[in-house]
Amino acid sequence: MSHFDDLMDYERQTQALAQVAGRLSWDQETVMPRGASPQRAEESEAMEHVLHARRTDPRVGEWLAEIDAETLDPVGRANLRHIQRAFDRTNRVPVKLAGEIARVTSSAQRSWAEARAANDFKAFAPVLAKVVELKRAEAQALASGGDPYDALLDDFEPGATATELEAMFDALRPRLVALRDRVMGADHQPAPLSGTFDESRQMELTQEIARAFGYDMEHGRIDKAVHPFSSGSGLDVRITTRTSATDPFGSIYSTVHEVGHACCEQNIDRDYLLTPLGQGVSMGVHESQSRIFENQLGRSRAFTGWLHGRMQEVFGPLPVADADAFHGAVNRVTQGFIRTESDEVQYNLHVLLRFDLERDMIAGKLAPADLEEAWNARFEADFGVKVDKPANGCLQDVHWSVGLFGYFPTYSLGNVYAGCLMKALRNAVPDVDASLAEGNPRPATGWLAENLQRHGGLYEPREVITRACGGVAPSEGPLLDYLEAKFSEVYKL
Amino acid sequence: MSHFDDLMDYERQTQALAQVAGRLSWDQETVMPRGASPQRAEESEAMEHVLHARRTDPRVGEWLAEIDAETLDPVGRANLRHIQRAFDRTNRVPVKLAGEIARVTSSAQRSWAEARAANDFKAFAPVLAKVVELKRAEAQALASGGDPYDALLDDFEPGATATELEAMFDALRPRLVALRDRVMGADHQPAPLSGTFDESRQMELTQEIARAFGYDMEHGRIDKAVHPFSSGSGLDVRITTRTSATDPFGSIYSTVHEVGHACCEQNIDRDYLLTPLGQGVSMGVHESQSRIFENQLGRSRAFTGWLHGRMQEVFGPLPVADADAFHGAVNRVTQGFIRTESDEVQYNLHVLLRFDLERDMIAGKLAPADLEEAWNARFEADFGVKVDKPANGCLQDVHWSVGLFGYFPTYSLGNVYAGCLMKALRNAVPDVDASLAEGNPRPATGWLAENLQRHGGLYEPREVITRACGGVAPSEGPLLDYLEAKFSEVYKL
Repeated sequence: MSHFDDLMDYERQTQALAQVAGRLSWDQETVMPRGASPQRAEESEAMEHVLHARRTDPRVGEWLAEIDAETLDPVGRANLRHIQRAFDRTNRVPVKLAGEIARVTSSAQRSWAEARAANDFKAFAPVLAKVVELKRAEAQALASGGDPYDALLDDFEPGATATELEAMFDALRPRLVALRDRVMGADHQPAPLSGTFDESRQMELTQEIARAFGYDMEHGRIDKAVHPFSSGSGLDVRITTRTSATDPFGSIYSTVHEVGHACCEQNIDRDYLLTPLGQGVSMGVHESQSRIFENQLGRSRAFTGWLHGRMQEVFGPLPVADADAFHGAVNRVTQGFIRTESDEVQYNLHVLLRFDLERDMIAGKLAPADLEEAWNARFEADFGVKVDKPANGCLQDVHWSVGLFGYFPTYSLGNVYAGCLMKALRNAVPDVDASLAEGNPRPATGWLAENLQRHGGLYEPREVITRACGGVAPSEGPLLDYLEAKFSEVYKL
Repeated sequence: MSHFDDLMDYERQTQALAQVAGRLSWDQETVMPRGASPQRAEESEAMEHVLHARRTDPRVGEWLAEIDAETLDPVGRANLRHIQRAFDRTNRVPVKLAGEIARVTSSAQRSWAEARAANDFKAFAPVLAKVVELKRAEAQALASGGDPYDALLDDFEPGATATELEAMFDALRPRLVALRDRVMGADHQPAPLSGTFDESRQMELTQEIARAFGYDMEHGRIDKAVHPFSSGSGLDVRITTRTSATDPFGSIYSTVHEVGHACCEQNIDRDYLLTPLGQGVSMGVHESQSRIFENQLGRSRAFTGWLHGRMQEVFGPLPVADADAFHGAVNRVTQGFIRTESDEVQYNLHVLLRFDLERDMIAGKLAPADLEEAWNARFEADFGVKVDKPANGCLQDVHWSVGLFGYFPTYSLGNVYAGCLMKALRNAVPDVDASLAEGNPRPATGWLAENLQRHGGLYEPREVITRACGGVAPSEGPLLDYLEAKFSEVYKL
């Protein structure tokens, strides 16, 4: 066996253990008994210790030093690149700190859920302060002199920097604000879909739509959780959703969103199973798939035309005049507090708020105890309304409680990528709307699987998007063009 | 920190990882997507490697060599004893063999489920042959010159030997056979409970009864699985059940059985959490709790009197004349193929069959390919009927597919223990029947928690039973006395 084969065998076991650790998180969010929390914290910490020890094992460093990348094929070189990067990153974080982060975030997540239910930020603030303290220490260790926030960001979007993102977001913001103002001031305001909708039928419809978009239930399952998410890679990729009797779109579109994530894992070349290439390459690329599934495809006029009919079959007559009014109900732009329920026009404004606040927390400019106040002030400035309760404000997202800093901006980057990909997809699959109108997104999702998802970690994030777009590098233009065209039509601007 | 503290810290992480591995098995049996099987096999093997590496780590041997047991308190000494025994056992099995067993049994379990569904033993035979081959190699390694079967048995019932069990079973068999003959030939034959019973109501009733027996849902949950089981220790102890529209007793009594197992974990002194003492001390002791919950308590005249009324509230009027006829229906002795559905009189005859066949397979006297024939011949000899299909014969139990050899005899040992404990309990809690008649098993299950379950692994199996029985060593007499008295009454002998 060559050093490379040894390394890949070793990496395969590490990947398998990482899948186990990920499934432990899935379990915690879906089925874990409430009282198990303290024990689970120790279990998660023990798994983190094992993974950290494997990732920092001197043998990996020795193998990496011995292997000549020039002797490998492109797949081998890509694997080596991922392993080297992960090895370098992991070795910078002390094992004790990594273990403490795992333990603290495991119980912090429970504290967050309780504080959110009780609408009590003060109960969560000291827990968040501890998480931020640990993440700042981790960022310092990772950055080794560079920008601490970029060091965290790099874990989710290799190669991206806050400075670059800020420039992109600066270009996004004015046209989004202008579009929102026009939409909010429009004479034509689509009505919402009112009524109550049986939640078990919602779950059934959600499964049907998940399958239609390409979710493979032989290698996945759908459960309920507080926060919808996708979990796992390879042959076991699970998603969660939530239902509300008065908001069937919440369940449908959060599911389609998570199906985008799940397909980004399920459709990777099976040759890459349990290797570093067997996972979506970055959160931005991941989010590009969840958002294009959810919005450019799922909320298109063509697909909502089909959904309008299907929902009447499932729930009986709907209180909307026609498919056009239904399309308007799906795409309404309204004042709202919750990022995950936000419309396409305002969504990125939610993200920019979090991006700035978390950069300030990591930079030490914003004390976690002051987060609620800072959030509420910024929200009122950006959205024109006061936050009414923490569950609608700074306690709405799970991310920070589990230590995810540097993750939020990848949502907007994903939207930018989705804009670029949709433009390319329309060129490549001209009849995409005809299929969507029949409730069949497969020509579209199949193109994405073939041109993007199957590559897994073979290419760097920017490169794989550029390749899928026929050599055109990603920019915010196509997303803005798409949004302006779509909402001008919906709102008859 | 002393060597002992170091050892206990290390052991605590190992225990936490073992809980994770156990939960992976729970996941596989309850919620895992079908197509995930090949990946799961690699995940299980990776976890087994981690655990094996920890258990054979030279540091453990060094700590054990350095620690003077005389300096420890009784709890410390008991912990040390468990760690030493596990260390000695694990070090005898090569890491490659341990990994292969984990991998093969993971996929063998899937093969077993498929073969069972298809009633096709031949499809499973080569898989079983591989499992037996690996377990024989493991037994040879463990026995280091001693009896290979005893070496496997010792993993489930420390200190027990096949020779001793054989003597006990030889004393059981004639009185059980005589009782069965009298029961089968009795003029009075209780009628079964006929009808169909809503399965979701069965699940609700099952949860109610589980709680009544003391199952703590804050630290547990109930799901459906092909084979009911209990999984986990400490703060996360999950059970599974199965339902059948025409057999509500199947669901109720398999649940009460698993609740006995679960209480045996949940009621252990919390000071022992994630230490070697924080688990039921042996399978025999475990089974004594599941069987006393299920039979001596759950199938008692007092409790069935309450259950008769409760089931009429839940399901409407039952087609039985009175509580006496209901009690007869619960305790009917009939010809049947399935061990887990067997009555108290014949149950141990099922176990003895498996005990002899698995000893022969481990000794190399019975080829796995010949198992179906051997099983069917022995079954006809013992039970007087021919096995009609493998799902009712040698494919009915999951155990061998997952490598559990030496486990079956602990079922009968547990029944013997249960007989002894019930005798002691009746002396200690004279009004136990009055509470059971009100649907309240807590005085009984509380006594078991206090006198047996809370000790976890503090005492050796025989010792903890002897202590709970006020100094009387276990023997088969009380079980036989109890069965003869009970079934003489039920069958009006």
